[in-house]
This record gives sequence, structure tokens and C-alpha cells, in this order.
Amino acid sequence: MTASADSVLALSGGVGGAKLALGLADELPPGQLHVLANTGDDFDHLGLHISPDIDTLLYTLSGLANPEQGWGLAGETWQAMDSLQRLGGETWFRLGDKDLATHLRRRQQLAQGLSLSEVTAGLAASLGVDTHIYPMSDDPVRTTVHTTDGDLPFQHYFVREQCRPAVTGFNFDGISAARPNRAVLRLLQDGQLSRVVICPSNPFVSVDPILQVPGLWLALRDSPAPVILVSPIVAGLALKGPAAKMMTELGVPVTATGVAEHYSGRYPGLVDYFVIDESDVTLAPEIEELGLEVAVTKTIMKSRDDKRRLARFTLGLGED
Amino acid sequence: MTASADSVLALSGGVGGAKLALGLADELPPGQLHVLANTGDDFDHLGLHISPDIDTLLYTLSGLANPEQGWGLAGETWQAMDSLQRLGGETWFRLGDKDLATHLRRRQQLAQGLSLSEVTAGLAASLGVDTHIYPMSDDPVRTTVHTTDGDLPFQHYFVREQCRPAVTGFNFDGISAARPNRAVLRLLQDGQLSRVVICPSNPFVSVDPILQVPGLWLALRDSPAPVILVSPIVAGLALKGPAAKMMTELGVPVTATGVAEHYSGRYPGLVDYFVIDESDVTLAPEIEELGLEVAVTKTIMKSRDDKRRLARFTLGLGED
Repeated sequence: MTASADSVLALSGGVGGAKLALGLADELPPGQLHVLANTGDDFDHLGLHISPDIDTLLYTLSGLANPEQGWGLAGETWQAMDSLQRLGGETWFRLGDKDLATHLRRRQQLAQGLSLSEVTAGLAASLGVDTHIYPMSDDPVRTTVHTTDGDLPFQHYFVREQCRPAVTGFNFDGISAARPNRAVLRLLQDGQLSRVVICPSNPFVSVDPILQVPGLWLALRDSPAPVILVSPIVAGLALKGPAAKMMTELGVPVTATGVAEHYSGRYPGLVDYFVIDESDVTLAPEIEELGLEVAVTKTIMKSRDDKRRLARFTLGLGED
Repeated sequence: MTASADSVLALSGGVGGAKLALGLADELPPGQLHVLANTGDDFDHLGLHISPDIDTLLYTLSGLANPEQGWGLAGETWQAMDSLQRLGGETWFRLGDKDLATHLRRRQQLAQGLSLSEVTAGLAASLGVDTHIYPMSDDPVRTTVHTTDGDLPFQHYFVREQCRPAVTGFNFDGISAARPNRAVLRLLQDGQLSRVVICPSNPFVSVDPILQVPGLWLALRDSPAPVILVSPIVAGLALKGPAAKMMTELGVPVTATGVAEHYSGRYPGLVDYFVIDESDVTLAPEIEELGLEVAVTKTIMKSRDDKRRLARFTLGLGED
């Protein structure tokens, strides 16, 4: 891996984060984007190792993603799941026929002793992705969602229960023993990065697991590269997924200010710039009181151009 | 499992044997056919447990099999294999999208602690198969083919190398520790069987592994039910697969007589009736000299009627 001083590191969960990662990849020279992915959503299912956020990044950045839903593959078919249903197997987590190949390949390579980082790099190369995608750790971290219905493994909460139970908290099992991705630590320590972008991913279940890998958030804070956070909450709604619902249930204001308080409370001094949507411009003064420099732009990404525009805006912050 | 005195036990490998098993299932009352399947062809591949002969029986007897090739599923698709190829994975053993469901289900249930017998019974029930299908043993037995190119695991010889290397012998790894299927032993010991049919499967790699599970062939010989062997060789050709090629390479005459000598030499007293094809009628005297009672009929099974007719003929042997 080579990195020039113009390299950018993005922290990302799944669909929402991958949108901005795609914009960043479009705007940067080939090989200059590095993405650190959440693996707290990973789970073992049907004897396979599923890495949903890594796969969403791989599929999005390779151009193979299903453009309507943002996850999974375009032209996907469901013969295996339909047959598995007939056999009485578990089908609540839908694995498409093409997608199964990724999991079979990953499982085989992990069984051969490769690390998740190595497997991910191989998959990216096979798919022609020149963005570097890294798991936050090669050690297993598994998000448990505490809910009023009891504790649920993340995918049971997210997919099987479709986020219905009210959230009371989270645990990232294994995190205290997880070692941060070495390549990313090296990028940070070597001063190779011009910027760190925290994509508009879910703060609680996508970004927190990454930042709570021991040593990681302090390394990000102490790196000379400015850290730019893009708000996942726009006009009181989540750009994608259950972030707004979770904030309501946790008693956090469902606003960009609530997001800012989350990050400045848990990771003081980490975020330099906070990108909020035009529709939230009136929140700027109260956010700046938290010590964050606010930048305002359109943050909703529908088209490819939207993604590029937001990426360009983000990359322009902190320039002299 | 219930078995009346009219129950029939068939020994079968894959495609060739499954044809006669289908005819027998058609001719017998529901639930009266028991099939003991070879598992020497089983292997672990892509982290899955593949049981080719059991699956061919399941698919054939459920009516889901691909009617042209005799193995695999009708209407199968290959999205997973095509994607796996792109990812640089192993695709020499082609697993269809529908077929993958069987292997995912089997793997998950084995990992949960079910035996291969239990998993197989569950798959049969899900597919509406009322024939009882048993693995010869729940313990792993793996056929190695000794060839002039070195030793090859069976599927490497059979699928990857397409039976090209010349065979010099076989080994069934694990067989001395393998315990025979208990349900079948009980059928034999309880005198519940009216007949045992050795299907026209490959003597070396389909039937020998079954008969060499410790205790099995002697239990078959000592059971009061007559044992009827259907020749897999007709007019010097194998009905299916590499049996004739193997016989040539091993220096065995490629005739029904060669088959008879194989069985009477290795398993003396086992076979009571030997069913040969009309085209081999002139071999009857020399076969009878080996102590087998010869029965002559058409043995080539193309249509469903052919299968039923041969099944009827077989079931009529030994009647008073």
C-alpha cells in the first residue's frame, strides 16, 4: 500500500457511508482513498462469515451494487434462499446467489488462515476496486443491541426484527481485546493523510464501534489531518437506517446538535469540522458552542453528482 | 421408522444406482424402500459438506433432479459459481445456486451436532421423499483413488481430472473405524427385509465402500433376505461412469463375468441372484459356475417405465 500526503481516510458503516465513500473515490486520484469499515455488524450465519459493511463498500465502490436498495448486488437472484426455505433453513437474512460467492470465498480464505484484512484486500482486487478497504480490526467485535425486548445480536435487531424493539444501549462484544487495523494506524502515524472523513453513518452502531477499538480514536485525534464529520441527521430525520429512531429512544435530540453532542461528549477534541445540511443552518450557533467548526452545504446524496459534490465540499474544508 | 417384512433395502451410489432406486420406489408401497448410500465420495469443499450420492438420491427420488444429466437439480442456475470465479475461488466442482441450499443446510445442522443420518432424514422429509435414505455410516469415510499420476481424493479424480488418470487401486480412508448405519443393521437383524438389491453402481467406488464398512457385508450375507445384484456392465460397457475404464486399467475383464468375479471373490456367499442384460446372455453359464444364480432381462434404464420394469423384475426374483 502506498499513500501520499494527499491520501484521505474515511470511516464508514454500510449504505449511508458508502455513498460518500463513492463520491470521495470519484474525486480522488486512484488509490488515494482509504476506508476503515465497521465490523461490529459482522456475524456468522449458515456457517459463513458475513461482513455487511465491508461488502456494501466493496459492491458500491466496484459499481456492482444494487442501485435501488444500496446494499446487495445488481441483478441478484434468490434461488439458494428459495431452496433453503423449502428445506426448513433460516432465510430471515437474505443471501443472494451472487452474494453467496463472496461469503464462500471469505469463509474459505479465513479457514486457510488469512486475516479479514487480507481477505478484504483480495476481494477488492478481484472486483477491480482501487480504494483500500480495511476492517476496523481483524479481531472479532460483535455489536449487541440492548432493547426493551432484551439483548439482540445486531443482525437480529436490524434485519430479523427490522429495528422494531426500542433501544436502550449497545455493547461491542470483544472490543477491549480488538487490535486496531495496522495499516490505518501506520497511515495515521506516518502523517500520510490530508483528511479524515467520518461518513454520515449511524453514530451508535457504525461509527462508535470503529472509534472504540482501543487506541483508534486517540490516534485519529492526534494525527495532524483534520477530522471532518458529516451529519447523518438532516432536518430531524436520518439519511438512512434507524439512527433517528435510536436517538429518540435514547432520549437524545434528533438533530445535528444531538449528533455533535454525541461526538464531542465521547471523543473530545476529535472532530474539527462538522458538515451539516442547509436545512439545519439555524443549528450552527449552538453546535459551534460545542467547539466544532460548522460547514453548511447540501448533504442529501441521491445522484452520483450529489455524492461527488458533497465529497468535493468535504475535501475543500481546512484548505488554506 | 417402520418396516414390514415387505421392505426392501437397496445399496446405491449416485446416478446409475438412483435410477433403479426410483424404479423400486415406484413399485413398492410408500415407505417400504430403504436405500443405503455410499458416502466415500463425500468431501469438504468451500467449507461445505458435499454428499454427492445422497444428494443424487434425494433429488432423483423427489423428482427434482435434472433429467438430462441425472445429478443436480432441474432449473438450476449458476450465479454463485460465476461470481466465485470472478473472485478467484475454486469452481472446478460446480455447485448450483439451488444445490448450495442443501449444502448450507447440511453444514449448519452438522455443526449443531446432528448426525449425517439425521440431517439426511430431515432433507428427505423437507423434499417429500418417503424412501428412507441412509448414509452407509455417520463416520467419515473418504475414497482415495490410487492412479499412475499419484493418489487423488475421489472428487479430484472424478470431477477435476474427469477420470483421466489410470487407476491402480483404491483406499477408503477411515473405513476401519466407521460404524455401519444403525437403522440398516436393525432392519437386517430384525428380519424385516424381503430383499436386498445392489443397484447397478460402480463396484469399486460406490458399492465396495458400503460393503467394507465393518460388519456390513456379513450382516447382509447372514440376513435371510436374498441379495440381488444388478450388473453395472452391459455388453462390455458401463451403464454410467468410469466402471468399465477402471476395470480395464485394473486388468479385470470388462464383462458381467468380471463383475461377478469381483463380488464372489471379495464377498463370498453374499450375492444370491445376479441380474445381467439380455445382450450378455451367453455369459450366464460361466457366471453360474461362480455359484451365482443368473437372471436375464433388459437392464438399460432410459425411461421411467424401464426403471419400473427392471425394479419389478428384480423384486420378482426369489418368489416361490
